[in-house]
Amino acid sequence: MSPSRFDDRITADPDSAWPVEAGRYRLVASRACPFASRAVVSRRLLGLEDAISLAVVDPIQDDRGWNFGLGPGGRDPVLGYRYLSEAYLAADADYDGGFSVPAMVDVATRRLVTNDFGVMTLDLATQWTALARPGAPDLYPEPLRAEIDELNEVVFRDVNAGVYEAGMATTQEAYSRAYDALFARLDALEERLRTRRYLVGDTITEADIRLFTSLVRFDAVYHGHFRCNRSKLTEMPALWAYARDLFQTPGFGDTVDFDHIKRHYHLVLDEGNPHHIVPGGPDLSGWLTPHGREALGGRPFGDGTPPGPPPGAEAVPPRGRAA
Amino acid sequence: MSPSRFDDRITADPDSAWPVEAGRYRLVASRACPFASRAVVSRRLLGLEDAISLAVVDPIQDDRGWNFGLGPGGRDPVLGYRYLSEAYLAADADYDGGFSVPAMVDVATRRLVTNDFGVMTLDLATQWTALARPGAPDLYPEPLRAEIDELNEVVFRDVNAGVYEAGMATTQEAYSRAYDALFARLDALEERLRTRRYLVGDTITEADIRLFTSLVRFDAVYHGHFRCNRSKLTEMPALWAYARDLFQTPGFGDTVDFDHIKRHYHLVLDEGNPHHIVPGGPDLSGWLTPHGREALGGRPFGDGTPPGPPPGAEAVPPRGRAA
Repeated sequence: MSPSRFDDRITADPDSAWPVEAGRYRLVASRACPFASRAVVSRRLLGLEDAISLAVVDPIQDDRGWNFGLGPGGRDPVLGYRYLSEAYLAADADYDGGFSVPAMVDVATRRLVTNDFGVMTLDLATQWTALARPGAPDLYPEPLRAEIDELNEVVFRDVNAGVYEAGMATTQEAYSRAYDALFARLDALEERLRTRRYLVGDTITEADIRLFTSLVRFDAVYHGHFRCNRSKLTEMPALWAYARDLFQTPGFGDTVDFDHIKRHYHLVLDEGNPHHIVPGGPDLSGWLTPHGREALGGRPFGDGTPPGPPPGAEAVPPRGRAA
Repeated sequence: MSPSRFDDRITADPDSAWPVEAGRYRLVASRACPFASRAVVSRRLLGLEDAISLAVVDPIQDDRGWNFGLGPGGRDPVLGYRYLSEAYLAADADYDGGFSVPAMVDVATRRLVTNDFGVMTLDLATQWTALARPGAPDLYPEPLRAEIDELNEVVFRDVNAGVYEAGMATTQEAYSRAYDALFARLDALEERLRTRRYLVGDTITEADIRLFTSLVRFDAVYHGHFRCNRSKLTEMPALWAYARDLFQTPGFGDTVDFDHIKRHYHLVLDEGNPHHIVPGGPDLSGWLTPHGREALGGRPFGDGTPPGPPPGAEAVPPRGRAA
C-alpha cells in the first residue's frame, strides 16, 4: 500500500507506451490480498479473462516475497519466473522497494508495467472496453464518478487501509484511532446500505468492488487477527446481507479463496503467531445463505449481464471455498 | 490449572483442621480468571460476603505473579501482603510451584489453606450452609449431584480447559483437536439449552456457574485471542440467551469485570501481542438485552431468593461493566 513507483498506465490509446492489447499483459495477483483481488474481480466482471491472463501467487511469501510456488516446478509457466521480484527488477534493476501485488507484467519483455492498484481497476473499467465481453457492465459510469471517487477515498482510509492500521498498530493510541474510524465508517455504510442495494447508483460499481474485498476478509482475518473486534460482519445486518449478495454474484465469490486469505494473514503477517497456527474458524457457510437484497431493487449489471463461470483453470480449489 | 498441591478442605466439621468460621478466611481471587470467578459467584449467590472476605488481585501479574497492586500502598489491607506467593510460602516455605487463584487464606496465620478450585465451590455450597444468607439456593442438590458431576467433567475438559488448550497450542494438530472438541461440546450444550433454562434440574446449580465463567469470557478473549473462532457466543442463540439470563441474575454479572478480563488475557498471556494492545471490542451492550428465557420456566433460586446487590466496596468499577 506504499505509494507506487511503477505507475505507468495501460490505455486505450494505441500510440501510448502501453496500449491495451489482448494477450500482451499478465496480471499477477494474490487471492489473499484485498488490493490485488480488486483487479481479479474487475477482470471477471468485465470478461477480460481471455485478454489478460492471470498468475496467482502462493499466499505464503518467503524472504524474497511473493512467489510462483503454485506453478509447475515452482515457476510461472508464462513468465518463467520463480519470484515476482524478477519482473520488478526487469523493469528497474536498481529498484530497492517492496514487491507488491497486483502487478501487470508485459509478457514479451517480462517486465513490470504497473503495480498501481488504485488506478489499475479504473483502467480495466474504462480503457479495456473494446476487449470486454458482450454484456460487460460499466463499473465506473461517467455521471457517478465523483460520488464513487469520494466514497472510495473514505472507504480506503477507514476500511481498506484502516484494518491494517489497526492490525499493525504499535501503540494503543494508534490502534484505537484506527478502530474507532473503522467502526464509525462501517456504521455509516450500514446505514447507507439499509435502503440501497449498492453503494452508488443502482448497479454494481467500482465502489462495491473496493468495499467487498475488505468485507469478505473481515470475519476471517480482520476481526480476530487485526483486532477489529467490536462486531463481526455477521453482526452488521445490512453490510452482511450486502456482502453475501455480492459474494453470490458471479465474478465476486468465485474469486475468493478463504484458504489463501487465512494462511497469508495468519502465517505471513504472523508477529503474534509464533507457532504458526491457522484458526479453524470462522464458519463460512453463512456466505451462501439467502440475503434478501433483491427486495431493494437495483440491477446488478445495469443493461448488461452477469459473467459466466470462471475458466476451469482459475476455479478456486474446494478447500478455499465457502462450502 | 495444574493439580493442586494445597488441597486441604474447609469443612462444617468443627473438629476438622479448617472448620467453617465467619471471618476466619480470606478468598483471594482474580476477576480475570474463570476458575477464581467461580468462587466469587458462589460466594455472592450464597450470601457469604460477610463470612468470607474477598481480596481482588491486579489482573496484570508481574514476574512474581498475582499481586495486590489494587490495594492501598500495593498491599492487601487484611493480609499485609504484596504478593499472593507470600501466602503460599507461609504454608510451605519449600514450595516451588505456581501461585494460582482462587486461594483461600487463613487470616490469623496468613497462610494458604487451599487453591483447589475444583473442590472449593462445592465446599462453599455444602459446608458453609450455616453461614449462608436466608434464602440462599442449594447449588449442589444431593439428588442431582451425579448429573452435575458428569456434566462438569466434560464441560471442564472441552470448554473450561479446552479454550486454553486451543489458545496455548503449539501445534496445528493440538489446536485443531481442542477447537473441534470445544465446538462439538458447545453445539451439544446449545441443543440441551434450547429447551431447558438451566443445565441440570430447573434451578441454578454448580454446573451453570462453571459454564458461565467460561461463556462470559468467550467473545471478549477466547474467540479472538485463543482462536476459538468458529462462532461467537452471540451466534449461538440458546447459549447466548442462557449466558445473558445468568449475567442478568444477581450474583453473576455483578461479579464480572470485562476490563480485568481483557487486560489479563491480552497483556499477560501476550505471546502474540508484542505491542501490548488491548482490543477495543467486543461490543458488550448485548449482555443487557432481553433474553426471553423466562418462557422456558425454571426457578432460578428454587425455593430461595436472589441475593441483594454486592457490598459497595466490591462493586465492579464502571469501566469493567457491560454498560
